[in-house]
Formats: sequence, structure tokens, C-alpha cells
Amino acid sequence: MTYCAAIRVDAGLVLLSDSRTNAGVDQIGTYSKMHPFGIDGERQLIVLSAGNLATTQDVVAQLERDIRDETERNLLSVADMVEAADYVGELNRAVKEKHNNDPVFDANFIVGGQIGELNPALHLIYPAGNHITTSSATPFLQIGESKYGKPVLDRIITPSVSLDTAALCALVSMESTIRSNLTVGPPVEVAVYERGSLLLNRHYTFDADSDYWKKLMASWDANQRQAFEALPPIEWSKIIDQSD
Amino acid sequence: MTYCAAIRVDAGLVLLSDSRTNAGVDQIGTYSKMHPFGIDGERQLIVLSAGNLATTQDVVAQLERDIRDETERNLLSVADMVEAADYVGELNRAVKEKHNNDPVFDANFIVGGQIGELNPALHLIYPAGNHITTSSATPFLQIGESKYGKPVLDRIITPSVSLDTAALCALVSMESTIRSNLTVGPPVEVAVYERGSLLLNRHYTFDADSDYWKKLMASWDANQRQAFEALPPIEWSKIIDQSD
Repeated sequence: MTYCAAIRVDAGLVLLSDSRTNAGVDQIGTYSKMHPFGIDGERQLIVLSAGNLATTQDVVAQLERDIRDETERNLLSVADMVEAADYVGELNRAVKEKHNNDPVFDANFIVGGQIGELNPALHLIYPAGNHITTSSATPFLQIGESKYGKPVLDRIITPSVSLDTAALCALVSMESTIRSNLTVGPPVEVAVYERGSLLLNRHYTFDADSDYWKKLMASWDANQRQAFEALPPIEWSKIIDQSD
Repeated sequence: MTYCAAIRVDAGLVLLSDSRTNAGVDQIGTYSKMHPFGIDGERQLIVLSAGNLATTQDVVAQLERDIRDETERNLLSVADMVEAADYVGELNRAVKEKHNNDPVFDANFIVGGQIGELNPALHLIYPAGNHITTSSATPFLQIGESKYGKPVLDRIITPSVSLDTAALCALVSMESTIRSNLTVGPPVEVAVYERGSLLLNRHYTFDADSDYWKKLMASWDANQRQAFEALPPIEWSKIIDQSD
């Protein structure tokens, strides 16, 4: 499996992905699931992928081929992020149909970025090719093993948090996921896109053995334990006791 | 959906369940998913249920009927917890077969307790009727919407923690789940079983508007935010930057 998340705040976008792939437990691999496309000063788009690895590689290869062949519609020619999502969705659905719609071959994508002077946007794309975007009440999207890391995003992320806070929250969301699910693993990639910059100059990789990743994971673990230890003890006598 | 968890520590067992049921979003109900059976001083068993509500009610009704009819095998006659799990598993599989094995009607159960001088035990029972138990490395079992609340259990629970710590951890695991998933909701039930007691004299209900539940939820939320704010800021300059 995979865990990817994308956050839209007033200041810009944060995109997060792990790098573990598996086809059964004995076919474990490491692949980047973060695919940047862009022209500095004109547009920046990032595609995150989750699901069947052959399908995601097929779609990403097609995205690259269309750019190389300068087809009429590609990620460097689409007029806005909705068109980008429609386009990725069509490629995704085409692969699904090629395999007789067997759900084993399903994949999900998130496409995020900014085109010219339009607002930055995120879209989550389903196997059927349809897609959803964020809102101020729902400022993040997730694909893959999304549940373990959702509570901390629900707790911390609002549109007004800074890009650095959003990036840090994305990382701890990944820590909770990696801790509880074998099929999600480092290296972890984070892209931080500043609204209006039209540059992707912050795309980071955290290796499992990097000092900062180890320090962050140890701190989050210690702080979580402390948060737990600081809870008020249960006043059992005040709780409704059904065994009485 | 549902969220139930059961924890086995050296001191005994803790069992946790929410009370929300849904068949689609407009058929929301409140049912207890914690079913105690026992004879004080002889045995105590608790059954937790998740999945299709008709199936879980069918199985629990059969458990009760077999006790009332004093059939040869029922929860008050089984010789050990493995036999209890086999028995619940057979009832579960029988309901599944009655519905032509349609996975829509699947249910999962956890049966926990202690019989006489045997060790307390927990078993998670699948729709096929087979089951798994805990180990010292895997001291808890979950059914239903298990992922949101797993990281905190992974972090805190070891066999040596006290029953009160295990119960508190179960409650915060429930908080994270309720916060992130609409289909899980209060009242929350917790049973605390002290090893060797053969009594179930601690079975508590936390209503959404009870003072302690509100206080606990607010504390956990505040402590989580504090845990996040106390993290070391990301030293971006020391991270591998792929955009260079």
C-alpha cells in the first residue's frame, strides 16, 4: 500500500508521500510516489499516486509521454487544475478499462498545483476518473492507508496554519501510519509549494536513518506518551456503572 | 460501522465499544455492542460485535437462547476460551451461510474473559468462524473501524501496563476514532476485568454529554496540540532537497 496526503492552506500547498510498494509481502519495493511536472514561473503541478503499481506507473508514463510528444492536452498545456484532474482521471479510467474494470488494478491519484494566476488547488482522482477537491472546512485530501494518520490532520490543519506547520503535521501523520502499518514506509517525500511562487524549490526527502527523521519520530513518540500521561485519571466512581 | 477493542494485560482485560450503528447514513441507531455473560465466581465472558447489525443480533440472540435452553454447548458451559471462540465462530459462519455467504452480511466478534482457573484470554472471530488470539507482542485486538485508533494503542499498550492505564488508552483510542469517523459514536462502554476475580463488577458507560467524557476529550485534544507544538521545528537546510 501507500500513504499520501495533500494539504491546502492559505499560504500554499503541502504534499506528502511514502515510498513503499508491495505486491504481497515478499515483493516489497521502494518507488517514489511523488511526480512533479512544471515550468518555472508558469505552472507547477505534482501528482501523487496510490494503488496498483502497474496502473500508477502506466498513468505516470502516459503523463510524461504526452508532454514529450507535445500532445494537445498534457499537464503543461491544461488551462486549469480541474482540467488537469479530468485528464489524469481519463488516463486512470482508461487503464482500468484495459483490465476489464477489475478492482485489483485500481489506483487513486492526487493532483495539486498552481497554473498561472489561478488559485492553487488539489484534486483527488478516483479509479472511475471522477474527482473531488478541498474546501475551507476540508483542507486536506488523502489516498492509500489514510485512516491511521487522519486524526492528527483533523486536529491541527485549518486553512490559516503556516506551510511549515502543515508540513510538520503531514510528517507526524506519516509517522502514525508507518508505526501502525507495515505496508507504508520511508523514504518520506514532502513538497512545500508557496502560493504564487510558480516554483517548486522545496521538495524534500526524509530517509529512515536521517538524523532529523529519527529526531522527529522520537520527539513525537515522547510527546504523545507525555500527552497520554498528562490526562486526568478516570474518576470511576462518577461514571455510570452498568454492573451495579 | 463500529469500533471495538480489547486489551489483554498481565492484570486482566479491558474491553471497549462504541454504540453507533448505521445502515446507510439515514438509518442511524444506538445499540450496545458489548454483551456480558457470566456466573460470578465461576466464569466471566464478554462478547463485542461489529459488522452487519442483523447478523450480530442473530448471533447474540442465539448465544442467549442456548443459555436459556441449557443446550449442551453454550457460553456458560464451554470448557475454555478457545471453545468459546469456536462456538461463536460456528454461529457466525452459520448466519453467513444462511445468506449465501454474501459479504454484506459479514460480522466480526471479539470474545474475552476468564473461565475458572484458566488464564484470561481474548479471541477475534472472523466471518469464516476462524479466530486469532493475543500474544505478549500483540496485546490487543480490534474490530470495525480499527485504524484511526490503532497508533495510540501501538504506542502505549504493553502487557505490564495497569488496568486503569489500559482503560484510559482504550478511551483515547475511541476519541481519535469518533473524531475522524462519523459512523462511530457514543455512548462508549468500557469493561474492566481483573484477572482471577471471576466477577464483572466494572462495566462503565460514557455518555457524550457526561462531564468526564467531555473533560477527557478536551484534555486529550489539548495535550495532542501541545505535543504537536512542542515538536522540534524542521531544519529544512539539513534535509535532502530534490529540487536542487
